Amino acid sequence: MTPTLLEEEKVFKDPVHRYIHVRYKTIWDLIDTPEFQRLRRIRQLGTTMFTFHGAEHSRFNHSLGVYEIMRRIVTKLEVLTEEERLLCLCSALLHDVGHGPFSHTFEKVFKTDHEEWTRRIIEGETEIRRVLSEVSADFPKKVSEVIGKTYPNKMIVSLISSQIDADRMDYLLRDAYYTGVNYGNFDIERILRLMRPAEEQIAIKYSGMHAVEDYIVSRYQMYWQVYFHPVTRSAEVILKKLFQRAKLLYDCNYHFRIFPEPLVPFFKDGPAKLRQYLDLDEATVIYYIREWKREEDTILSDLAERFMNRRLFKYIQYQPLDYLMWTDLQGLFEDAGLDPAYYLEFDSPSDLPYDFYRSGEEEEERLPILLLMPDGSLEELSRKSDIVQSISGKRRFDHKLYFPEDRITDEIRKRLGVN
Amino acid sequence: MTPTLLEEEKVFKDPVHRYIHVRYKTIWDLIDTPEFQRLRRIRQLGTTMFTFHGAEHSRFNHSLGVYEIMRRIVTKLEVLTEEERLLCLCSALLHDVGHGPFSHTFEKVFKTDHEEWTRRIIEGETEIRRVLSEVSADFPKKVSEVIGKTYPNKMIVSLISSQIDADRMDYLLRDAYYTGVNYGNFDIERILRLMRPAEEQIAIKYSGMHAVEDYIVSRYQMYWQVYFHPVTRSAEVILKKLFQRAKLLYDCNYHFRIFPEPLVPFFKDGPAKLRQYLDLDEATVIYYIREWKREEDTILSDLAERFMNRRLFKYIQYQPLDYLMWTDLQGLFEDAGLDPAYYLEFDSPSDLPYDFYRSGEEEEERLPILLLMPDGSLEELSRKSDIVQSISGKRRFDHKLYFPEDRITDEIRKRLGVN
Amino acid sequence: MTPTLLEEEKVFKDPVHRYIHVRYKTIWDLIDTPEFQRLRRIRQLGTTMFTFHGAEHSRFNHSLGVYEIMRRIVTKLEVLTEEERLLCLCSALLHDVGHGPFSHTFEKVFKTDHEEWTRRIIEGETEIRRVLSEVSADFPKKVSEVIGKTYPNKMIVSLISSQIDADRMDYLLRDAYYTGVNYGNFDIERILRLMRPAEEQIAIKYSGMHAVEDYIVSRYQMYWQVYFHPVTRSAEVILKKLFQRAKLLYDCNYHFRIFPEPLVPFFKDGPAKLRQYLDLDEATVIYYIREWKREEDTILSDLAERFMNRRLFKYIQYQPLDYLMWTDLQGLFEDAGLDPAYYLEFDSPSDLPYDFYRSGEEEEERLPILLLMPDGSLEELSRKSDIVQSISGKRRFDHKLYFPEDRITDEIRKRLGVN
Amino acid sequence: MTPTLLEEEKVFKDPVHRYIHVRYKTIWDLIDTPEFQRLRRIRQLGTTMFTFHGAEHSRFNHSLGVYEIMRRIVTKLEVLTEEERLLCLCSALLHDVGHGPFSHTFEKVFKTDHEEWTRRIIEGETEIRRVLSEVSADFPKKVSEVIGKTYPNKMIVSLISSQIDADRMDYLLRDAYYTGVNYGNFDIERILRLMRPAEEQIAIKYSGMHAVEDYIVSRYQMYWQVYFHPVTRSAEVILKKLFQRAKLLYDCNYHFRIFPEPLVPFFKDGPAKLRQYLDLDEATVIYYIREWKREEDTILSDLAERFMNRRLFKYIQYQPLDYLMWTDLQGLFEDAGLDPAYYLEFDSPSDLPYDFYRSGEEEEERLPILLLMPDGSLEELSRKSDIVQSISGKRRFDHKLYFPEDRITDEIRKRLGVN
Repeated sequence: MTPTLLEEEKVFKDPVHRYIHVRYKTIWDLIDTPEFQRLRRIRQLGTTMFTFHGAEHSRFNHSLGVYEIMRRIVTKLEVLTEEERLLCLCSALLHDVGHGPFSHTFEKVFKTDHEEWTRRIIEGETEIRRVLSEVSADFPKKVSEVIGKTYPNKMIVSLISSQIDADRMDYLLRDAYYTGVNYGNFDIERILRLMRPAEEQIAIKYSGMHAVEDYIVSRYQMYWQVYFHPVTRSAEVILKKLFQRAKLLYDCNYHFRIFPEPLVPFFKDGPAKLRQYLDLDEATVIYYIREWKREEDTILSDLAERFMNRRLFKYIQYQPLDYLMWTDLQGLFEDAGLDPAYYLEFDSPSDLPYDFYRSGEEEEERLPILLLMPDGSLEELSRKSDIVQSISGKRRFDHKLYFPEDRITDEIRKRLGVN
Repeated sequence: MTPTLLEEEKVFKDPVHRYIHVRYKTIWDLIDTPEFQRLRRIRQLGTTMFTFHGAEHSRFNHSLGVYEIMRRIVTKLEVLTEEERLLCLCSALLHDVGHGPFSHTFEKVFKTDHEEWTRRIIEGETEIRRVLSEVSADFPKKVSEVIGKTYPNKMIVSLISSQIDADRMDYLLRDAYYTGVNYGNFDIERILRLMRPAEEQIAIKYSGMHAVEDYIVSRYQMYWQVYFHPVTRSAEVILKKLFQRAKLLYDCNYHFRIFPEPLVPFFKDGPAKLRQYLDLDEATVIYYIREWKREEDTILSDLAERFMNRRLFKYIQYQPLDYLMWTDLQGLFEDAGLDPAYYLEFDSPSDLPYDFYRSGEEEEERLPILLLMPDGSLEELSRKSDIVQSISGKRRFDHKLYFPEDRITDEIRKRLGVN
Repeated sequence: MTPTLLEEEKVFKDPVHRYIHVRYKTIWDLIDTPEFQRLRRIRQLGTTMFTFHGAEHSRFNHSLGVYEIMRRIVTKLEVLTEEERLLCLCSALLHDVGHGPFSHTFEKVFKTDHEEWTRRIIEGETEIRRVLSEVSADFPKKVSEVIGKTYPNKMIVSLISSQIDADRMDYLLRDAYYTGVNYGNFDIERILRLMRPAEEQIAIKYSGMHAVEDYIVSRYQMYWQVYFHPVTRSAEVILKKLFQRAKLLYDCNYHFRIFPEPLVPFFKDGPAKLRQYLDLDEATVIYYIREWKREEDTILSDLAERFMNRRLFKYIQYQPLDYLMWTDLQGLFEDAGLDPAYYLEFDSPSDLPYDFYRSGEEEEERLPILLLMPDGSLEELSRKSDIVQSISGKRRFDHKLYFPEDRITDEIRKRLGVN
Repeated sequence: MTPTLLEEEKVFKDPVHRYIHVRYKTIWDLIDTPEFQRLRRIRQLGTTMFTFHGAEHSRFNHSLGVYEIMRRIVTKLEVLTEEERLLCLCSALLHDVGHGPFSHTFEKVFKTDHEEWTRRIIEGETEIRRVLSEVSADFPKKVSEVIGKTYPNKMIVSLISSQIDADRMDYLLRDAYYTGVNYGNFDIERILRLMRPAEEQIAIKYSGMHAVEDYIVSRYQMYWQVYFHPVTRSAEVILKKLFQRAKLLYDCNYHFRIFPEPLVPFFKDGPAKLRQYLDLDEATVIYYIREWKREEDTILSDLAERFMNRRLFKYIQYQPLDYLMWTDLQGLFEDAGLDPAYYLEFDSPSDLPYDFYRSGEEEEERLPILLLMPDGSLEELSRKSDIVQSISGKRRFDHKLYFPEDRITDEIRKRLGVN
C-alpha cells in the first residue's frame, strides 16, 4: 500500500503548533467528514470555561493538534513503514471522535462510553469508515485497534496512549494556551527530538530527563490548577443533577413543554443508535437546558437557570462524611425545602492526576516512562527523578461539598461553618 | 457618588492581558447578570472558525478584554472623575451586549440592529439595568449614551468608539491570539502610556507614532488575512441563504418538521420582544440548522447539511457583473436545477478596513487619530506617516463569486473558467 | 562530493529559532575555528545597547541564526545539489566573519572593508580555509564568491544577499527579540514555506504576499525605531571622534600612556595583516578607550570618559546647514573652547532603510522581491502592495545635530534653540 | 523626606518585563553613574555563553530587571513609607554593583568578595554615594545595610535577599529568556499579587502556592540545566587555572610580554583600591587573556588559547577520588608532560540549588517561604507542597573530572575509561 499524497502540502494555522501540515489525502478527507466536523461543536474542556473564560476551544481544535504532534514523531521514527505512519496519523486524528457533549458527566449519568462510540464511528456506517477503507479493507479495524489499545504493535499504541503520548502533550500545551495559565508549558521539541524506539514502546534519551520532568510537573499543575478547579466542578455537579432530573422526569412521563427528542435515546436503557449519537452536540444540550428554564418542574428549571446564568453552587472544603452525618445533613436540607438529591453533593476528584507505574496495579495497566541511559539500558523515570518520585503514585483527593448558598437556612449555614 | 469597591480585588486569568482586574462591585455584578453571561454563547468571529480553527472564542471573552484595556486607560487619565471612570468601564464591558448569534448575517436578513438591542438591554427590564441603577437612577441611560455615541463628553465616547479605541485594540490582539496569526500584534503598552487628553478626544504623543502605525497596519492585515477571508465569507453566504430560505418557508406556511419557535419572532416583520432576543444564542441557531438537515425542503436541508459539515461554496475571483451577464449566469444555474437565489452569490466585502478621516465624508463621521507634537500642536496621523497615508481612505474591494462546485454543470464550469 | 555527516545531529539552544540543527561535519568544524569563535567578542548592534539595554548579543549569535534559516530554506529547495546545499550553509554561517568591533564606525574612520576581510579570512591562511578545503580544493573560493555576490548561480547568491534573504530575516527577528520591541516580528515560517525557485532568484507565492508585506514593514520599523535611534547614533558619533582623535595623536607622535599597539596597524595607511585584524575584538577596543580616560590629551580623555560612562552628546532635529551657518556655528564652538571637529556633528542617517528596486539605479543593484502569481507569472512586490509601494524607493533622512549639552555656552544654546 | 520625582515618568524597553518604569530622580541619577554603567561591561552569566550562545546579557541588564520587580512589589505594599520604598528600589538596583568580571572564579582565586565591594562602592568615594546622599546623609549606609542584610527592618531585607526575592525572580526569568530554555518561566504576576506582609517578611497567600511551586521547580531546573552545565564549568575551570597561573608567574617575577597592570593589584595579597576595582571589567580581562596567547610560558599561552577559542576541557562523570587514586592520576598526567595543577580538575558544584529552611542549619540563615493560610496562620512551604518537599534541603552533587582530551595519553585514556 502506498498512501496517496495531496498534490501540494496543505496547512492549517494553529496557535499552538504554528502550522498543522497535511500531506496524505486520507487525512485531508477524514477532516472533511461530518463525523469529524462534529467535533467543532463539542468543547474540549466542558465547563472549564466557567472558570477560565479563555478555554472555549473544541475537540476539533485539539484533535488537529494531536495529529500534528504525531506527524512530528513519525517523521523521525525510521522503524515505521509508510502504512504504519499513516495508521499512527489516523489514530491520532480520530482518537477523540467518539466524545459527546460534556462527555464525562454525560457518560456517568447515561452510562455511555466514548471509547465504545469511537470504535462504532470508525468501524460503523460512517464517512470516516469509508475514507479509511480506501487505504485498505482492514484499515478501519486497525485504526480502531490502535485507539482501543489492542493493536499488536505496542509501540504504535503507546504513541497515542501512554503517559507521554501525543494526546497528552497536545492537551497540556493547548489547554495552557487557551486558559492563559503557563503551567502547561514544556519543551516539546526537545522531548520529540530525544524519543527513541525501545522494546515495545518509546524511551526518552537520558539527556532529556529534565524536559520530561518538566512535562510531568506541568501535567500535575494543570490537574490541580485547571482540570479539578472547584468552580468547574461546581458547574459539572449542576449539569449532572440536570441530566438526572430530566431522565427521572422522562421516566415518570412528565410532560415537557418542549420534548427533548434528541436526548430521549439516552434516557432509555437500551443503546442509542449511531445516528442518534452523532446528532448530539453541545448546541443541542444547551438548547434544551435553556428551554428547561421555563419548565414547570421547579428543580429542573432552577438547575437550568443556574447552569445558563452561571449561578453555581458554592463549595467548601469538607471531610468525607460518615453515614450519620450524611443523613443528618440531608435532613436539614429537606427541612429547608431543598431536595438533597439535587442540592447537596459531596465530590472528591478521584482520578489520579499523576499516575506512574506501580507494580501490582490492577484497574489499568500503565506503561512507565522509560529513560534510555548512556549505556543503552532503560530506567523507569521516577527512579531517576526526585521530583517525579515525589508525585508518583500518590492518589491525592480534594474533598468538597457543593450546595446552593443562596437557598440554605441559617441552621445549615451554621452546621457547615459558612459565614 | 462613590462607587462601591469589592472587599478585595478579584481577577480573571486571561490569555491576552494575563489578568483582568475587578475592583468595582458594579462591574462584578454586571458580569454575573444573565444578559452578560449570554455572551458566552455567542462567538466573537462567527464563521471564522471554519477558516481558523483556533478562533472559537466568545463575545464574553472579548468584552472582558475591552473592559481591561479601558481599566488601564482610565487609571492614567487624571481628568476623569470617579463616576466617569466607572461609566467608561461599564460602557466598555457592555458595548457588545446587544450582539446576537452570527450578528452580521442575522442583522442583514432579519433587519435587526445590535446597537438598538444594546440600548434596549441596558435601559430595559433587565438585570443589567438593575445593577447600573444602583449607581444612580440615570446611570443606565448614561452608559447607553456613551455606547450610542450621544453622550456629551466626547472624549469618553472616543475611548470606546474611535479609530483607536479599547474595543479595536482588544479584538486585534485577541483575534490574533486565537487564530494564531501574528499580524494583529502591536505594542499596546506603549500606546496606552502615550495617550493624552486633547480637546474632545485622546491624542497619542508623537514619540508613539510608530506604535500607532503598527496598530493600523495590524488592523489592515487582520481585515484582509482574517476577517474577509473567502472561506469565512463562503460560510456566511450559506448562512445567509439558510436564514432567507427559512423565513420564506415560514412566510409560505411550510410545515417544519420541528417548528423553530425561537426564530419565529424574527421571521415576522414586527419587532421581537426583549425576552425573545435574549433567548437567542448560537446554540439555538445551530440546533435548528442541524435539525433542518432532515427537512423535506431540499434547499433548506442541503444548505443546512453544508453548513454543519463545512461543505462550503467554492469561490473565484470575479469582476462585478453587469445585468446581462448576471441574467445569463442565473439562467445557466436554473438550467442546472440550481436556484440562483440560493446557489449563486456575488460578494464584495464592502466595509472599509482602514478608514481614516477624509473631509466631506458623509455616511459616518470618523474621528481622526491625532498625534500630540512636541510643540503641543495636534496633527492628524496620516499627514505624518507614509504607511498610514498609503492605506488611508482607500476603499478596497475583493470581488468574489460563490457557488457549489460539486453541483455545477460543465457549461457553468466553462463559463466561470473553473477547471 | 558527498559531505560528511556527524554521527548524530547536534543542536544549539537558540532563543529565536528554538534550536539550531547541525548535521554536516564541516559546519561543526567551522563553528569551532578561532576565526568564528572571535565573533563572540563582537556585538551585533554595536552602540545600540546604550539605547536598548537588552541588545547585547554578538555576531556569533546572529551568524548561527542565519545558518539555521538557510538550513530551513535549502531543506525544501529540491533544485539544489548536496554540495550546493553545503555551499549555502557555509556562506550563511560565514557571511559576517569579516566584521570587526563597531564595524561601521571603524570602517569609516580607518578605511577598512569588512567584505574584503571576509574574503581574506575565507581564502587566507586560516582554520576556516583549512576546514572548507576538506570539502574540495576550490570550496573556499566558492564560499567567498557566494558571499561576494560573484558566484555564477545567482539564486544561491540571492539566498544570502537580496532583499529577503536569510541574513535579514534573522537579524530582524533576533534584534527584535533582544531589544524587546515587537516591530521585528513576521511570519517567517509562512515565508519559508512559500518560497519557490524562479529564474535566477527566489520568488514568494502570491498567497504569501501579506507575510512579505509584514516583513517589509518590520524592516522599515526596525530601521527607524532601533537602528537609527539618535541615542545609538550619538554614541557612534563619540566613537568616531575617539578613533579620529587617537589616529591624529598617533600621527603627531603623541606619547600614549599605554601604547595602543593592536590599533596601530589601522592608524597607518597601509593594509593591516590578517593576524592583526583577527586579533581585534571589542574587548581590545574597549580596553583602550577605558585606559584613554586617563590620557593627558583632554579631548581624547573627555570623549573616552563619555563613551565609557554613557555621557552622550545631546541631539536636536536640524535642517542641513549651509556653509555660512556651519562656519558661524563652528566659530561659536571655538569661542566656547570646544573643538568643533570633535564636539559638533551633523548626522543624517543616509542608508536607505527600505530599498526597493528602481530602474536606473546605479550605486548598487537591488534584486526586486518577486511574487509568483497563480498563473505562473512573476510580479514585483511593490506593484501589488500599496503598503510596500508607499515606502518603496523613498530615501528618508533624519537630520540631527549632536553636541555636548553640558559644555555649550548660553549663546550656542540660544542659537540652537535649546532650553 | 520626600523623594524628588522626575517631571515625567521615563521608561526603558525591556525584553523580559516589557518596560522598566522610573519616576524617582534618584533612580535615574544612579543609573547614570559610572559605577553603575560599568555593569554593562560585566556579563551576568560569565562563561555560560560558551554553552548557551544566547546568554550574553550583562549585570546592568539584570539590575534594571530586579529594580522593576521591586517597583511592582513596593507599589502594592502599603505598609512602607515613601522613603522605605525608595530604599527598596535603590537596594534592588544596586545589589550587584560590586560584582566584577567572571565574579565567582575571580573571587575564588584572588580572595575578593563582591559583597564587600558593593559596600565600599555604596559608602565610598563614588558617584553612587553622592547621589544617594542627596536623599539624606545616612541613606547610603541604609542602602548598604539592606543589601548587607543588617538593616533593622527584616521585611525590607527579605524583599531583596530571601528565597523568593526580586533578585531571584528576575534572574530566573531573564536567564531563561536569554538562553532560550523555558524552564525558568513562572507566573510572576500571580506571585506579586498574592504577596502579603507577614511578621518580619513577606508571605504568599495559600491560593498562590502552585505558582510558588512552579517558581521553585524553575529554579531547580535552571540550576541543573543552565547554571551547573558542565560545558560552562569546563570554561570556568580553564579560567581559574589561567588566573592561578598568571598570579604564580607574577609572584615569580616572570617577564610578561605585556604587563597586566590592571590585574596586578589582585595578584598581591593586600586589598586593592576602590578605583582599581572599578577599573576592572570583562573587556580588560579578555584583553589580557587574548594577549597571553602569545606569552612564552606554555601553560599560560595554552590555557589562554583554549579560553579564547573555546577549546575546552573534556568532562566525565567521576566519583570523588581518594588520596591514592588522586596521586596515581596526577602521576600519569605528569608522565604525559601535563602539569596536573593546571590540566586536571575535580569539580563538584557545591552550592545548594534548592535551599529550604532546615532547623539547626549553621552556615547561613535561610528564611523559609511562608504561605498565608485562609485562617490567617502561616505555614512553611515545603509542609504543604509535595514537590517542594521532594527537592527541599537535599544537597545534590555533580562530580566531574575535567582534562584536555586532545593531550592525554592512551594510558590516561584507559584509566579514565574514555574512548
